[in-house]
Amino acid sequence: MSTFLENQNWRYATKKFDSTKKISREDLNTLKEAIRLSSSSYGLQLYKVFIVENPELRTKIQPAAWGQSQIVDASHLIVFANQTNVTDEDIDGYLKNVAQTRNIPETALTGYGDFMKGGIGAKSDDEKSNWTSKQTYLALANLLNAAAELKIDVTPMEGFVPEQVNEILGLNDLGLNATLIAPIGYRSTEDATQHQKKVRKSNEELFITL
Amino acid sequence: MSTFLENQNWRYATKKFDSTKKISREDLNTLKEAIRLSSSSYGLQLYKVFIVENPELRTKIQPAAWGQSQIVDASHLIVFANQTNVTDEDIDGYLKNVAQTRNIPETALTGYGDFMKGGIGAKSDDEKSNWTSKQTYLALANLLNAAAELKIDVTPMEGFVPEQVNEILGLNDLGLNATLIAPIGYRSTEDATQHQKKVRKSNEELFITL
Repeated sequence: MSTFLENQNWRYATKKFDSTKKISREDLNTLKEAIRLSSSSYGLQLYKVFIVENPELRTKIQPAAWGQSQIVDASHLIVFANQTNVTDEDIDGYLKNVAQTRNIPETALTGYGDFMKGGIGAKSDDEKSNWTSKQTYLALANLLNAAAELKIDVTPMEGFVPEQVNEILGLNDLGLNATLIAPIGYRSTEDATQHQKKVRKSNEELFITL
Repeated sequence: MSTFLENQNWRYATKKFDSTKKISREDLNTLKEAIRLSSSSYGLQLYKVFIVENPELRTKIQPAAWGQSQIVDASHLIVFANQTNVTDEDIDGYLKNVAQTRNIPETALTGYGDFMKGGIGAKSDDEKSNWTSKQTYLALANLLNAAAELKIDVTPMEGFVPEQVNEILGLNDLGLNATLIAPIGYRSTEDATQHQKKVRKSNEELFITL
């Protein structure tokens, strides 16, 4: 069986973390690199990723996430936050990065930049924010998959009040909005849900071959 | 280095596929299983995934995706389509699956079902569709990551006209909407973009540690 599938079958949405176990600096760097290498629309990566270790902050966030214990018991809490707006400066910054990384003149990218600016500029404010929030789901999946390879547990969560997390982390002032949070660490041996069978739709329900 | 990161660095958004190479049945099954095991909100998997091999259909889809050659040259075209509505029947179907998979009585899940129905029922029609569309991004990332392990190339695409793809595949009648398309196959040796350096934000730009 592919290693990827083995890892997928190993992972589960951990309900209880072992609060005594911390992720090593090296493994944390691997997870960050997996997030950093995520695909995103046009490659723009229009989001920020918070690595929250601070216990006081996590105690504040916990009530905004239905009091779930993973928020405080896990080794770290990852918060994905999308840009609520997209400006020409974002695109210019990306083009500059392309030019520097690939050692080509920025002027060679002007046409492509205008194409991106036109497409993105045509979106409404709501569409922009929805669009950037979707990209964070790709980054979350990379975190889930890279963590599973390292036998690190992750609980992906949409179940929190974004407005409250935004307030606690000061995201509004940064033009950001919390889309997903993910405690990461090591499952507690006491978490009985780790032994439950994974529930998924059948191939027949999920796929249509044409 | 972790295998996951090696695979991430190997992959790129392929611009030109080798149209003579087809993905084996076994590898296609691995990719489907990777998609099937994707995480999703509540585990509901409120989308369908189309595996399009039919050349006529792909020729019809190509103009709806800015004429991109990958649509017709790749081995297969994957189309992710979110449910535009979510009903109590979806949740009941999921609960039935949980009960059967884990061999527990359905009645034990009634409370959890009501909790889900309440939360989802409070969303507007637009919010429901946005929410289910986001889940397809998790499934796409699983496809990207599983394919990279098999040295299969994928070009993730948002750049197409959903209304046209919906029309061609008859998705409206199924209550579905195309969110993402992904040609999969093998890169052509002629695709010069495979040699370009990957462009990503720096750790300093992307991460905030608290």
